Parts: sequence; structure tokens; C-alpha cells
Amino acid sequence: MSKLRRVAMIGAGLTKFGEHWNLSFRELGTEAAIKAVENSNIDGKEIEAMYIGCMASGRFVGQEHIGALVADQLGLNPIPSTRVEAACASGGLALRTGYLSIASGEHDIVAVGGIEKMTEVTTAEAGFALGGAGDQETELFHGATFPALYALLAKVHMKQFGTTEEQMAAVSVKNHKNAVHNPIAQFRKEISIEQVMKSGYVATPLKLLDCSPISDGAAAVILAEIGLAKKLCENPVEIIGSTHATDSLALTGRKSLTELNATKVASAQLFHQTGLTPKDIDMAEVHDCFSIAEILAIEDIGFFKKGQGGPATEQGKTALDGEIAINPSGGLKGCGHPVGATGVKQAAEMFQQLRGEAGGRQVKEAEIGLTHNVGGSGATCVMHAFRLMENR
Amino acid sequence: MSKLRRVAMIGAGLTKFGEHWNLSFRELGTEAAIKAVENSNIDGKEIEAMYIGCMASGRFVGQEHIGALVADQLGLNPIPSTRVEAACASGGLALRTGYLSIASGEHDIVAVGGIEKMTEVTTAEAGFALGGAGDQETELFHGATFPALYALLAKVHMKQFGTTEEQMAAVSVKNHKNAVHNPIAQFRKEISIEQVMKSGYVATPLKLLDCSPISDGAAAVILAEIGLAKKLCENPVEIIGSTHATDSLALTGRKSLTELNATKVASAQLFHQTGLTPKDIDMAEVHDCFSIAEILAIEDIGFFKKGQGGPATEQGKTALDGEIAINPSGGLKGCGHPVGATGVKQAAEMFQQLRGEAGGRQVKEAEIGLTHNVGGSGATCVMHAFRLMENR
Repeated sequence: MSKLRRVAMIGAGLTKFGEHWNLSFRELGTEAAIKAVENSNIDGKEIEAMYIGCMASGRFVGQEHIGALVADQLGLNPIPSTRVEAACASGGLALRTGYLSIASGEHDIVAVGGIEKMTEVTTAEAGFALGGAGDQETELFHGATFPALYALLAKVHMKQFGTTEEQMAAVSVKNHKNAVHNPIAQFRKEISIEQVMKSGYVATPLKLLDCSPISDGAAAVILAEIGLAKKLCENPVEIIGSTHATDSLALTGRKSLTELNATKVASAQLFHQTGLTPKDIDMAEVHDCFSIAEILAIEDIGFFKKGQGGPATEQGKTALDGEIAINPSGGLKGCGHPVGATGVKQAAEMFQQLRGEAGGRQVKEAEIGLTHNVGGSGATCVMHAFRLMENR
Repeated sequence: MSKLRRVAMIGAGLTKFGEHWNLSFRELGTEAAIKAVENSNIDGKEIEAMYIGCMASGRFVGQEHIGALVADQLGLNPIPSTRVEAACASGGLALRTGYLSIASGEHDIVAVGGIEKMTEVTTAEAGFALGGAGDQETELFHGATFPALYALLAKVHMKQFGTTEEQMAAVSVKNHKNAVHNPIAQFRKEISIEQVMKSGYVATPLKLLDCSPISDGAAAVILAEIGLAKKLCENPVEIIGSTHATDSLALTGRKSLTELNATKVASAQLFHQTGLTPKDIDMAEVHDCFSIAEILAIEDIGFFKKGQGGPATEQGKTALDGEIAINPSGGLKGCGHPVGATGVKQAAEMFQQLRGEAGGRQVKEAEIGLTHNVGGSGATCVMHAFRLMENR
């Protein structure tokens, strides 16, 4: 294998996540991209290629061909622009594809974006479209939408390890608390364990406040080859690792229901690539589409032993000032989850955190962060590791 | 820019293109992939990553997350598997993404696939889904589906260059003639100019037999780093060039309606990359979604002067035994056009042709071929050039 070049983020831009009745799909994408370009101090014309993550624009807004659309809206034709899709991991996969395009030597500066506009259809239609992230033939066809699939995972975890509904509620409470300090978050409002426990069941044992919401939003980052990044940017954030693994689309194909094997494979590869261990990580943005998903993630990555994710959360070990800050942005629960955008938003959060620009949600003395983006009920996992560059 | 590694195709597999009432989306993908693996003489376990082109599976079969789905169906988890989408150029873009993953040094052997199953919805629904390849807000919303958009391009070409309906009909007649010899083609049946002229108007001046059909189908190729390719395969086909360009999504954004600028940019880059000129090319698979599209392509690539594509076709210059064989496979018109699969099918045709395995449609003494895959009304163009390797 030839040597890959080093790659860094030099800018990030985000729209507010939430219900955008006055902004279209393309306007959201354009806003995030322009903010990222402005943040990076480059001229848009320096961008050589674009990589866009988007899950289901065909069903949400009747539009495919998203790569060309975004290049067109930004006036960047004829540069190549590629849409990638891996359900809710589409954004992370776009980041990885853009990263590889520079690491390979094909490009020097690229833009990576993630966009989803989910509120133009009814919630029922959105749930059905999202069901396309699972197995349409063996799951969705029989009525198993995503809350039901993650509810099954929660049930098994509760039975095997004694994880409680209160421990799962603690994930949502922490993420809402962090989101208060995030200007782009959909829910900038604290909630209590009691409020989560009293919110109605969506699919037992998961209640409304265990679930990330339906959201509109977009995120973008600008990547550059490391030598160029140092010239263009005072404090670039290096992408020090990038991995991608798959698993069976349907839960029925899994060997275990208490872990996501794609997360285990992707994180083992990430630690191998970087030479790091879970103890070296100061903070992580993990995929909390449902509260149980965050518990699975922090166990599968190796931050806590299997079965200890719930208690660790309840004890505050994953809080901003805990042993390891998990989802300082507010996560999918607090920020909202425009599915194609989430993976890029996670990277943008690492960019701001590592540069000390995260305001009230700043993780103190954070040097190394990682992102964990899951598609479906775990059939895709894309992970990245980041470090602030010493640019002197 | 660092040096890219050389990459070759070592196997290809195709399903029949047509209406597959008894095969599902996933079965089509699996069939093509298994045929490609068998054709390449590798073990499936040697595949390190997959790249799948698919345009609109969400709207056609209710399924997203196609990368993970295909890896799962083939029993190849946990390898990374990526879906890319660029409307009808999704297959070509998957090929390019897979090519770059080896050229970069990230992988040594990858599988590239394209799949679409379009007949599970009504023709009206399919037309509406395909409209998502154009501009949903400024074109499709107002009723401009794809036959209408290409009809506008045809009208301008007729007015400016005197191109006739008979000349456009000659494209379809030639492509049907080639398809007779292609076992995977949807229409293995010759048609006459008179039959095209008498087929009903879909959008004046385009008639039914100027239009490629709605189709189901899948195609796959196996790529390997060149050193490995020589070890694994007696006669690999090298990918000697790969380019990708974009243009405005809507026709209203174009400077000219008598050419597709994305084709001009992508082909200029391809000739620059390879050091070739149009005269060096022995055959090409070009994107004939409508008959006028083939005329635009052979002019924009530079095989014929602007305005001469129609007369050249009428005079037989693009026939199997003409100056340059255009669409020896039968093209989109003869083979059918399962939109995500087409770009990969084009590459598979070059693989078979350059190895002398194309039977009754064999282009004699063909040494260099190219493929031209268009998304939408020209907002994406992906091109590749191929040469048989002297493996002695």
C-alpha cells in the first residue's frame, strides 16, 4: 500500500438544526457551505471537488443528483461533485471519501457537506423513508421502523446487563444539557430524568425523549493537504484516522444483539491506525439516534466495559467534565438529526472543540477527539480521529 | 500531487437487462457480483471494499443503505461498502470511486457494482423519480420530465445544424442492430427507420423509439492494482483514464444548448490524462438515453465536428464496422437503461470487447475504448478510457 498523505480540516460551517419552514434543501446546503468557506479563509474557487452525504433526498424532497446540485448552487461547476449514501452514516462516509481523495493525491482542497431536509413530508412518511436504512424486505415490510429495532436492542441489553430505563434517560438528560450551549442545536433546553420517564412510549422501553428527532439541517467542512493546511490556517485540525465497516442490514443477521460489530471493527481499526487507545481520547461525538445507541457505542468503542455504559452515564462519567466527554455538541438527541448532515456536524464539532471555540460546551484541555457515525441499526459504522495541529 | 497507481479490470458480470418480475433488487445485485467474481478467478474474500452505483432505490424499491445491503447479501461484512449517486451516471461514478481507491493505495482489490430495479413502480412513478435527476424546483415541478428536456435539446440542434428526425432515428436503428448480438440486451431485435418514424411522439421531436426504456438490471466489475492484476488474470484491461465534471442541474443554467459542457470538460481532461486524441479511440460506449444524446456525445467528445453527428450516424460512420464503433453493446437504447447499472455495464462491455469476447458484436482490432456516462440532462459526466494490457 502506498503512503497516504496527511489531511486536515481548515474550516467548518453549520446551519441551525431544526424545522426550517422557510429554507429549502438547496438553501440549507448553500448556507453551510458558504459558512465553511468563509471560516476557512479560502476562495470558493480553490475547492477542487465536493463530497456530499445525503440519505434520502429522493423521498424527502423529490430530488436526486445531489452532488451536481450543490456544485451548481455554489457556482462551482464544472468541478467533480459526488454524493455518497450510507443511511444515517452518509455524512461520515462523505467525510471519509473526501479525506481519501486528498490522502490519495487526487486533490489538494475539497469541500465535504451533509444535508437533509426531513420536514417536507409527514412524520409517518419520514419514518417510512428512514426505514429504508434497515432491511426493507425483512424488517420494514413487517412494520419494524427504527424505534422498534433499537427497542429490541435495548431490551436485550436490559436483560443481559441490568441496564435501566433511568440509565438510558440519563443519556438524553446529559445531551440536552450540552445542547443548551450549542447555538445550532434544535433543543437548547434542559430536561430531567423524570421528564424522560414520563414521556410516552414510542416502542417499549424507548420513550419519546429517548429518541432523536426529525430535523432539517446541513453541515460542511473544508479539507486540505497538510502542507497547504498549515499555510492557509493558523490552527488546522488533522484527521489522524478514518475507518469504515459494515454488518448485516437486518438485526436477524447479527451474531450478538448487545454490541454493534461494525463499531467494534471500525474502532479497532481506528486505534490500530492511530496507535491510540480508548484512554487517549478526550472526547467523542457518538451516534445517539436513540439513548441505547450511545450506551452501545461507548461500550463497543472501549471507553467502558460491556454492560457498564448505563451506570457510567448515570454516574456522570460521560458529562462535559467527566472522565470522557461524550457528545459535547448535544449529540443527535440535543442537536437534532438531519440524517445526511449528522456525520459532518460531528466533525465540525471536533473542529470547534479542538480549537477552543466551543463556548459554554468547551471540553477543557481536549487534545484528541473521535467521531462515530452509524447507519441503520448498525450495518454501517464510519469513524474518524482528530487532533489539533501544532502550527508553529 | 502524488503519483497514482495503475489499475485494471480483471472480471465482469452482468444480469440480463429488462423486466425482471421474478428477481428482486438484491437478487439482481448478487447475480452480477457473483458472475464478476467467478469471471475474475478470485475468491470473494479477497475483495477489500465495494463501490455501488444506484440512483433512486428509495423511490423504486423503498430501500436505501445500498452499500451495506450488497456487502451483506454477498457475505462480505465487515468490509467497507459505499453507495454513490449521480443520477444516471451513478454507475460511472462508482467505477471512478473504486478506481481512485486503488490508485490511491487505500485498497488492492475492489468490486464495483451498479444496480437499479425500476419496474416495481408504475411508469408514471418511474418517470417522476427519474425527474429527480433534473432540477426538481425549476423543471420537474413544472412538468418537465426527461423526454421533454432532451426534446428541447433536440429542437435546438435541429434548428441550428439541420439535424433531422431521420438522423436521430438512425441512432436507434444502429443500437438495436448491435443489441441483437448482446445476450444481456433488453431488445435483441432490429428496427427500421420507418418504425422509429412511425412510433408515437413522446415529446416532439422525440418518439417512443428515440427513448431508452425503463429497465431492471445490474452490472459488476472487479478492479485490481496493476501488478496484482497481471498475476491474477491472463488479459486484464487497464483503466488508463478517469474523469468527472459537473454542469448546472437545470437547462436554464447552460451557456449553450447544442453541447453538454460537462462532456466537453470531462473528455478534454481524459485526452489530457491519457495523451490520446479522439482519432486514437477505436470504440466508445456513450450515453444514448435519447437518440439526440448520442449525437451530442459524439460531437462533444470530438469524434465528429459539431453538427456532423447526425449525418455521420446516417452514413454508417458509427456502425460496428464504421470509422468508430459507437455503442457496440447496443447502448442504453438497445440494452435497456437500469439507471444505476448503465455506467458499470459500459465498462463491462469494454472489458469484453478489448479481450475479444464480444461475439457477434465484436469490434475488430479494437485496442482503445472509452465510456461516457451522463447524469440528468448533462449536469454530471463521468468518462473512462481502457486498453488491453500486454501481459507477457
